[in-house]
Amino acid sequence: MNGPPTDDEAISAANRAFYDAFEAGDLGAMEQVWERSPRAVCTHPGWGTLRSWEAIRPSFELLFKRDDTLQFIVTSEEISLEGGVAWVTCDENLWSREFAGTAAALNVFVRDELTGSWRMVAHHASAVHSMQDEDGDR
Amino acid sequence: MNGPPTDDEAISAANRAFYDAFEAGDLGAMEQVWERSPRAVCTHPGWGTLRSWEAIRPSFELLFKRDDTLQFIVTSEEISLEGGVAWVTCDENLWSREFAGTAAALNVFVRDELTGSWRMVAHHASAVHSMQDEDGDR
Repeated sequence: MNGPPTDDEAISAANRAFYDAFEAGDLGAMEQVWERSPRAVCTHPGWGTLRSWEAIRPSFELLFKRDDTLQFIVTSEEISLEGGVAWVTCDENLWSREFAGTAAALNVFVRDELTGSWRMVAHHASAVHSMQDEDGDR
Repeated sequence: MNGPPTDDEAISAANRAFYDAFEAGDLGAMEQVWERSPRAVCTHPGWGTLRSWEAIRPSFELLFKRDDTLQFIVTSEEISLEGGVAWVTCDENLWSREFAGTAAALNVFVRDELTGSWRMVAHHASAVHSMQDEDGDR
């Protein structure tokens, strides 16, 4: 590719950087992904919503301390853009020693006017129940 | 209150209108809440993401046909605004004949430049697992 990235390319790269940081268990990289502000919000599967970077950071710290590495294959990425805000949906196909499954995610990014880079301000992921879950659970 | 509503008031009203339409099982009211466009996205608890109003509408039609009415008590609403886009987090405290529980939600709204009203473009809700769930499930 020649020339600067399009908005969609830059947003997709920001979304990819989130999953790369997650997969690598790299807290420093995760810090670069997020807007480290009070308005940042994060909902991990099955959790309540964490509000502000101060609350989100320790959740990744905790997750990254686990022995069980997560592998993500991200599919069905769809990007929508309105002004300086983008919302991205994708499927997180997860693989670890302990489990395999799919989570649906909604990620919101805001363009940093100073640097032009896209920062995550919201992440919400939830398990997509398989038919097997429906049989086996309550 | 005097004067026109602030942005936060208008966004909160749009968020409330979503839960009112849900509670009432009113598909016509739900249609007024949403931006009925291809970029609208909706993730119900445990579901994969529905993309486009054409896919979202039948999901509410189906839910509203159920005999079991949902009652919502919405708490912890937090609104963030950037240009013409707002993202809202809240807790959906749900009550029905069949179950009671809490879901975490992330809702995204876009300001309609013609009318000034706020339209939902993304809804993602997921069950917050109780400690009891953690003991009882897989």
